[in-house]
Amino acid sequence: MPLLIGNWWVLLQSGRHASSPTDHMQDHKFGPWTVHASEVFATSSLSFAFVNLKPIVRGHVLISPRRVVNRFTELTSDEVADIWHLAQKVSSRLEAHLGASSLTLTIQDGPQAGQTVPHVHIHILPRRAGDFEKNDEIYDVIEAASKEFVREKQGEAAPQNSSQKVDADAERKSRTPQEMAAEAAELRTLF
Amino acid sequence: MPLLIGNWWVLLQSGRHASSPTDHMQDHKFGPWTVHASEVFATSSLSFAFVNLKPIVRGHVLISPRRVVNRFTELTSDEVADIWHLAQKVSSRLEAHLGASSLTLTIQDGPQAGQTVPHVHIHILPRRAGDFEKNDEIYDVIEAASKEFVREKQGEAAPQNSSQKVDADAERKSRTPQEMAAEAAELRTLF
Repeated sequence: MPLLIGNWWVLLQSGRHASSPTDHMQDHKFGPWTVHASEVFATSSLSFAFVNLKPIVRGHVLISPRRVVNRFTELTSDEVADIWHLAQKVSSRLEAHLGASSLTLTIQDGPQAGQTVPHVHIHILPRRAGDFEKNDEIYDVIEAASKEFVREKQGEAAPQNSSQKVDADAERKSRTPQEMAAEAAELRTLF
Repeated sequence: MPLLIGNWWVLLQSGRHASSPTDHMQDHKFGPWTVHASEVFATSSLSFAFVNLKPIVRGHVLISPRRVVNRFTELTSDEVADIWHLAQKVSSRLEAHLGASSLTLTIQDGPQAGQTVPHVHIHILPRRAGDFEKNDEIYDVIEAASKEFVREKQGEAAPQNSSQKVDADAERKSRTPQEMAAEAAELRTLF
């Protein structure tokens, strides 16, 4: 009965990985750290989308493969397709939901490109006219925020600021778990 | 004879889109402009990879879908998978070939994100320690270079420089068609 076998296979897959409401209720690894279920707002079979501790702009989110993989080239062909299909879905719904007009999508792939967490992640940032004085200043802030994320996770004190942009970043306060959960709950309704 | 029909279909597809040596010998549309065959160094069924008029770093290349599509969300599911599979292949071979240690992969998706050519394109930039004084300064230069590309294609004179970074960019000279063809020929050997 090949059809039944097929159905069972689908059920098994679905129980393991499907993007169902309950599937959000699990923690994920983000490099050596944990992204709590409350911070995850969308999932696909091989990837998950989550909110940020210190978003650069409203709706600045991250997408990672479920498997802990450091570099983009280490992703399997299925993971590449899966993460970018999820990124496309998240992008379009986020932009519409937040009334943005453009998006920055970027991977800092490796330490010399500014990657701080050793786990592939796509930054998605809804953009609006004039959101940054210089359009690409946003990347400086992404990098400063990434470094700060690691520092906070490691429980270190913030270093002395050495530039205006890091000053600007330091003014942003880490969000509470409740604030992050509230944003994730809001975004979860889009999926 | 389903097998024969299948083979014919494959042959037809292959004649139209395969990544064969001769397939590089065709021009592609890049928004309203043409990327000449000599500038293309890798192709897949739905995408093509090409060299830059003014690369920011050695090996700064672009990848676009063959179909002229403005925004990332407009790509079909097949196009999303195809362009990122090609990007992954290009990334790993480029990094190894040029002895780089990281990569910046980015899409400026829409004008408010710095997109100047209305045709989806992934920037891939091999990165090395210390290649830019501030790691993410590279994005400012990407944007300045994108604007310059459009200006040159439109045959306009370069404007007065208004910032140090645009000054730095203005020092870079547009490459000749011969220089671009030579780089594409070098990179083509990797595929």
